[in-house]
Amino acid sequence: MKKHISMIAILAGIFFLITACNSNTKKRQEIMKADKNELNAIFPKGEKGSADLFTGNAYNIGLVDVDSVFTTAVGNVFFEPGARSNWHSHPAGQILIITDGVGYHQIEGQAIETIKKGDVVKCPPNVRHWHGASPQVGLQQIYIVPNTEKGIVDWQEAVTDEQYKK
Amino acid sequence: MKKHISMIAILAGIFFLITACNSNTKKRQEIMKADKNELNAIFPKGEKGSADLFTGNAYNIGLVDVDSVFTTAVGNVFFEPGARSNWHSHPAGQILIITDGVGYHQIEGQAIETIKKGDVVKCPPNVRHWHGASPQVGLQQIYIVPNTEKGIVDWQEAVTDEQYKK
Repeated sequence: MKKHISMIAILAGIFFLITACNSNTKKRQEIMKADKNELNAIFPKGEKGSADLFTGNAYNIGLVDVDSVFTTAVGNVFFEPGARSNWHSHPAGQILIITDGVGYHQIEGQAIETIKKGDVVKCPPNVRHWHGASPQVGLQQIYIVPNTEKGIVDWQEAVTDEQYKK
Repeated sequence: MKKHISMIAILAGIFFLITACNSNTKKRQEIMKADKNELNAIFPKGEKGSADLFTGNAYNIGLVDVDSVFTTAVGNVFFEPGARSNWHSHPAGQILIITDGVGYHQIEGQAIETIKKGDVVKCPPNVRHWHGASPQVGLQQIYIVPNTEKGIVDWQEAVTDEQYKK
């Protein structure tokens, strides 16, 4: 009888160890999954973009204010999944640097292009375009507007769901 | 005798499980440690900077080549710990955006300033400066040179160990 009890105790110990091991593995997998879904923020999120200029939740923070020496505006936009800018254009063009996530960029009349971490986009002066996140994953991007003495941005109408889903 | 052998087998099994668990924990700790010391790369590392222009290991990748429309040069530099640029100046100034790590920036005649992830530095036109990593942690930075029609960069002498350690 004693032998049986100690045997049961040992088996219970083994079961406990296996469970503990598995539980650690599961926790690790959950942490890795969370990391993969969240973007690696470089800057504070900033202020929510106006519903007049953006569809969905987009947050903007200015990094370099316009002045007469650098004549350059720089900022960071974080688009939550599904969020995008209205159609707009820049008198001197715009450079986008994607620092994390996955999104879309479209120049009017051209196909939507998928943009992701590490991509760089140059949009020529006075060309209508929009940019934003993919439906599933957010987008984090730095924008650079050069030669601001020519103007910064001309905002236009919203990107419809039909245009976004094409 | 049989009882002893099965007891030894069970104890060996327990020992194996404990070792396996510990080994997993150690591996996880090593991965987390490596993640903490390594910067979150956004772009490919690029090419090693010339020893004529940099002290230590610095890697540069161009993101936007100069053209007559955007008149802006953009690139990414990754400085390994201890690495720094030579003294240099820009005819139209330079904007630095720190995307990860910790480093230093100094405008000649001013104190060395510590720069880190999320910081933005504006260095005025024709002012001598240098930038690089801290001795312990690397630095990842995007540079923006505006108004390239005025020139891009004038390289000068190396930053001595005495200047770097001040």
